[in-house]
Amino acid sequence: MEIKIVRQILEWNEDKSNEIKALLSEKGVFMINVMGSPGAGKTSLIMVLMDALVGYRFGVVEGDVAGQVDAKKIAALGIPVAQINTDGACHIEAMSIERILPMFPLDEIEVIFVENIGNLVCPAEFNIGEDFRIAVLSIPEGDDKVEKYPLLFATSDVLVISKFDMKPHFDFDEDVVEKKTRDINPHGKAFCVSSRDGTGIAELATQISARINLKKHIGG
Amino acid sequence: MEIKIVRQILEWNEDKSNEIKALLSEKGVFMINVMGSPGAGKTSLIMVLMDALVGYRFGVVEGDVAGQVDAKKIAALGIPVAQINTDGACHIEAMSIERILPMFPLDEIEVIFVENIGNLVCPAEFNIGEDFRIAVLSIPEGDDKVEKYPLLFATSDVLVISKFDMKPHFDFDEDVVEKKTRDINPHGKAFCVSSRDGTGIAELATQISARINLKKHIGG
Repeated sequence: MEIKIVRQILEWNEDKSNEIKALLSEKGVFMINVMGSPGAGKTSLIMVLMDALVGYRFGVVEGDVAGQVDAKKIAALGIPVAQINTDGACHIEAMSIERILPMFPLDEIEVIFVENIGNLVCPAEFNIGEDFRIAVLSIPEGDDKVEKYPLLFATSDVLVISKFDMKPHFDFDEDVVEKKTRDINPHGKAFCVSSRDGTGIAELATQISARINLKKHIGG
Repeated sequence: MEIKIVRQILEWNEDKSNEIKALLSEKGVFMINVMGSPGAGKTSLIMVLMDALVGYRFGVVEGDVAGQVDAKKIAALGIPVAQINTDGACHIEAMSIERILPMFPLDEIEVIFVENIGNLVCPAEFNIGEDFRIAVLSIPEGDDKVEKYPLLFATSDVLVISKFDMKPHFDFDEDVVEKKTRDINPHGKAFCVSSRDGTGIAELATQISARINLKKHIGG
């Protein structure tokens, strides 16, 4: 019985996700779903990427179980931000994105970052109409996470190994992580980055920029 | 409609949790539910605690979405271990514990550690018949997690701030975390520990030992 319920929600979520995709294509907006554990550095990554992606206008959706800690950080940058509080739920559903999109000036914005709930499990199962998925795995979490939480890493466009400046202090083998990710996700690309010292951010921004331009080209 | 479904599962889970509590009391077994983010150091904490809690016989339940990475580490210590693979689900339910308990020699074991799925959200909602809840928050995750994921920290008996040896490398204020935890959980105690260098482990073991003895006393 339980399995049946989950399937119904997922199918309904998938329909909403497709509707959002159509709306965003019409408006020329590229949406990026950023997923990873609590404390993996998702907010910092979004902030440095907005700095590195020169010439685009942004919007940010902050997903949290409770509070607006990260939304306040984004608002302080003068960037349009909207908060989804899931009130206990462990992932953002497409329905929430559908409700929140009208709060943005979609005709003026080119890129929307969605920071999903800190969680390696459930967000991976719910498409939210995104064009691009970033899986963030931080050095302190350990190099066994791809094996333990395969779906997220299998379905992401890029794997971001974050807090790379912390590598000297942890026993983390990024080659193992990249190999295990390639095994389940042959098209995914891995980037070792540090939001603190800037390592790898330009390369990641170039990759994202190429995907934004590709969508524009296909759309136009 | 969605909320109704969740409630039904939660009520049913609560019944099972109470049945497990009754069985464990009869058998004189103390069960500890260890929760925290992926990579917070839950397995290492369980391993050093089993070392520090001298004179008890243990069993360990490893919960993972996929794989047996941690169960293999425990088995290598010669300790009875059973694996729950949730196959996509983000938390352990009492029903799974009910099914797995007969795999342990309950008449010979005094303490069972359950390592829950790496997740700060859903595990907190599902009681699994435990006597004691440990919330693990690691230094690299950041000191804003209590505010963002309040339920886990509000319902735990102790807060373990793990990887404390990493404090010099991160901007983490444990006093803020302890204060925010006290605000929502006045009876909870906080311990700053490092499984790597042993900091705080003896104090935490003493606290757990006192609770095990209290249960024995009340039960006997």
